[in-house]
Amino acid sequence: MPRYKLTVEYDGTSYCGWQRQANGWSVQEAIETALHKLSGETVTLFGAGRTDAGVHASGQVAHADLTRAYPTDTVRDALNAHLREERIAILTAEVAPDGFDARFSATQRHYLYRILNRRPPAALLAGRVWWAWKHLDERAMHEAAQRLVGTHDFNTFRSAHCQAKNPVRTLERLDVTREGEEVHIRASAQSFLHNQIRSFAGTLKLVGEGRWSAEDVASALAARDRTRCGPVAPPDGLYLTGVDYGTGRKRTLPETWPPRSAE
Amino acid sequence: MPRYKLTVEYDGTSYCGWQRQANGWSVQEAIETALHKLSGETVTLFGAGRTDAGVHASGQVAHADLTRAYPTDTVRDALNAHLREERIAILTAEVAPDGFDARFSATQRHYLYRILNRRPPAALLAGRVWWAWKHLDERAMHEAAQRLVGTHDFNTFRSAHCQAKNPVRTLERLDVTREGEEVHIRASAQSFLHNQIRSFAGTLKLVGEGRWSAEDVASALAARDRTRCGPVAPPDGLYLTGVDYGTGRKRTLPETWPPRSAE
Repeated sequence: MPRYKLTVEYDGTSYCGWQRQANGWSVQEAIETALHKLSGETVTLFGAGRTDAGVHASGQVAHADLTRAYPTDTVRDALNAHLREERIAILTAEVAPDGFDARFSATQRHYLYRILNRRPPAALLAGRVWWAWKHLDERAMHEAAQRLVGTHDFNTFRSAHCQAKNPVRTLERLDVTREGEEVHIRASAQSFLHNQIRSFAGTLKLVGEGRWSAEDVASALAARDRTRCGPVAPPDGLYLTGVDYGTGRKRTLPETWPPRSAE
Repeated sequence: MPRYKLTVEYDGTSYCGWQRQANGWSVQEAIETALHKLSGETVTLFGAGRTDAGVHASGQVAHADLTRAYPTDTVRDALNAHLREERIAILTAEVAPDGFDARFSATQRHYLYRILNRRPPAALLAGRVWWAWKHLDERAMHEAAQRLVGTHDFNTFRSAHCQAKNPVRTLERLDVTREGEEVHIRASAQSFLHNQIRSFAGTLKLVGEGRWSAEDVASALAARDRTRCGPVAPPDGLYLTGVDYGTGRKRTLPETWPPRSAE
């Protein structure tokens, strides 16, 4: 029974999120439906990151097992044909290495948060960026972001609905740069708490506006108190851009199960 | 009576085009409605390029006369506030120089046509690019495009509905480049015939696929025969990116009036 690894791009605007839900059309269900049309089988798809409603992906990774072996080009092209009416594209389909699990084998998840920082609102990028019309000092944001990098109890920066028992995570990277009219926040970690990156983005925007200092960010982190977080940024600007895998060997289950690995 | 020059960005997907129409919601009408909310006046807006349904703009230019003088920041911000539900943003509002006319003073119009050239279809860029899954040789496209640059009778490359009496235009620039997964066609001229750039894009795609040679393009141009044109590319990939103005002095009316200045 071959296991396929899919790399997926989607516009999250019209979905209730990655994960299948009783009320709402999810990216997972759309792809599972396409897998059913391809194979006739009822297939469960496992994704590396459970993106929320409105969150996009340019490099989500998922796996599914099919009884029959198809050429990988057939899997990619047939799924894309069945997904024609969706805002979802299968970028690549590969045969997964032994023991590969899109969720548990992931060693690093990469996200991008895009802020459109200009006086006029977004027209061409509506739904794809967070509009911030006050000028943001991206250097101050980057400096403050470095206070968050490392292994910390991130209780301040997670949703009240976060299911993880352990709020300790290791943030490998939190870089803030300016790209023309946009400010980009790039975050990498093995796993994230629910709403962690959107909590970072909302807090760092306060720094960019000069309302918070890097010290304020460090002190909010140290407080381990949700009420000390800045406003949570909207989903529009968030993209799951890629997932890294190590040797392909299945890692032991993480301490918190099921892991809330994404926004 | 001050004349305001507006630079406008829009996502053309949800509009029947730039121009006001009896059936359909146009960009022009949306902005005229916002101008009415701002000033209480019934205002006519004149655009530099009459973009078709589905065609986008990152730098359309338009002018309108208001009885009362408002600070330009107020015009921009108030219009954007009234356009909140639209996919339209006023990037800048300026007091126009004497004799300025968005349509007739334009000395150069600049368009970009974006082709997403990869095997998987567009998800994040759906509606914003033309998807071409066969690999395109952008160098061959660029070379063939140079056969179109200059002053020619472009009858082959215009819509059957084009209203211009004279099909002669001077194409200043037609450059084809690759930007990652995208192939970009950049076209500049004082004015264009209806569907001219989309006709170029559809024809150059045939060159990129190796089905047409540069010689075929030159011979199609020389034929001055609409049936010799390649398929017209969809509006999705087309953007009006900017309009140049000279001294601001009003030029004499062009030979063909009204000019069909855009796609």
